[in-house]
Amino acid sequence: MQAGKPILYSYFRSSCSWRVRIALALKSIDFETVPINLIKDGGQQLAIIEYLEETRPTPRLLPQDPKKRAQVRMISDIITSGIQPLQNLSVLKQVGQENQLTWAQKAIRPGFNALEQVLWSTAGKYCVGDEVSMADLCLVPQVANAERFKVDLTPYPTISRINKTLMALEAFQVSHPCRQPDTPPELRA
Amino acid sequence: MQAGKPILYSYFRSSCSWRVRIALALKSIDFETVPINLIKDGGQQLAIIEYLEETRPTPRLLPQDPKKRAQVRMISDIITSGIQPLQNLSVLKQVGQENQLTWAQKAIRPGFNALEQVLWSTAGKYCVGDEVSMADLCLVPQVANAERFKVDLTPYPTISRINKTLMALEAFQVSHPCRQPDTPPELRA
Repeated sequence: MQAGKPILYSYFRSSCSWRVRIALALKSIDFETVPINLIKDGGQQLAIIEYLEETRPTPRLLPQDPKKRAQVRMISDIITSGIQPLQNLSVLKQVGQENQLTWAQKAIRPGFNALEQVLWSTAGKYCVGDEVSMADLCLVPQVANAERFKVDLTPYPTISRINKTLMALEAFQVSHPCRQPDTPPELRA
Repeated sequence: MQAGKPILYSYFRSSCSWRVRIALALKSIDFETVPINLIKDGGQQLAIIEYLEETRPTPRLLPQDPKKRAQVRMISDIITSGIQPLQNLSVLKQVGQENQLTWAQKAIRPGFNALEQVLWSTAGKYCVGDEVSMADLCLVPQVANAERFKVDLTPYPTISRINKTLMALEAFQVSHPCRQPDTPPELRA
């Protein structure tokens, strides 16, 4: 990685890929995308983000203070372990076409309830205070998934407010699924 | 946490609690257990482990080398985001009593296939090299879950071998679900 341009094996729609793309954009790391038409979701990509953080520490995606770091990791884990695995493709397949929307909503809502409550005590402008962190990288792709599965976001004003603020940042826009090399034409924006 | 004895809100059977109990035992941190008869699984507890690592760095649960750290986190994430959320209580309830065993096996097997393959290139005595790490804290409770759901472990010789080596260590024994203050008498050992 230190030598040469890193390659990101990416799928335009995957939240995991998107999280990493945001991290790369924030750290201004030039990379090559190799599109993989395969959805293998999960939180594994947090290991990449932590690795980027350790090898390219500026700008930092984890706060310096251990308690704030723990808050960032807790929020990231609520999303990547508590919500996302339950709504990824292999699970939805097992659940069956006609139950997918209900299943995904049942997976997302309790997670968002927990998240909204946690954010009351941690959020400033962003998920934890006023600095963009790994938690924000996890939040935005998850909110996009919630919208895709038609979850009503009215009960989550803090989540919605932070998501809107983040979506105004360039790193979150260039990394968006609608702007990837493998985005199908009908989903481009 | 730095002041006074830490309190662990723990459920004897929860893999998440067990992971944290192992970390506390390895770091020789004296703590009080407050049993919570409630299963709220997920990977959130990795934030506690990372926090322990930062505030009590000895013995280290994350290797110093960034690449090895990434391996440790990747293995931990395969377990805590890729496998465990799919077999926890709220999901099993939604799946229905008669489908639970099949569902859990379907969740664990592909995860163990991935894990076994990753371990071929990372493992020494333990998951990553010859030092106990966060990955090992995640492995042991997950193998116990696999056994509970009657997953045949024959195709996973590396997982089985590492699990056996780890289970010989005191930190993994004292933290075992069969030895907790809230373990019901019939499950004690």
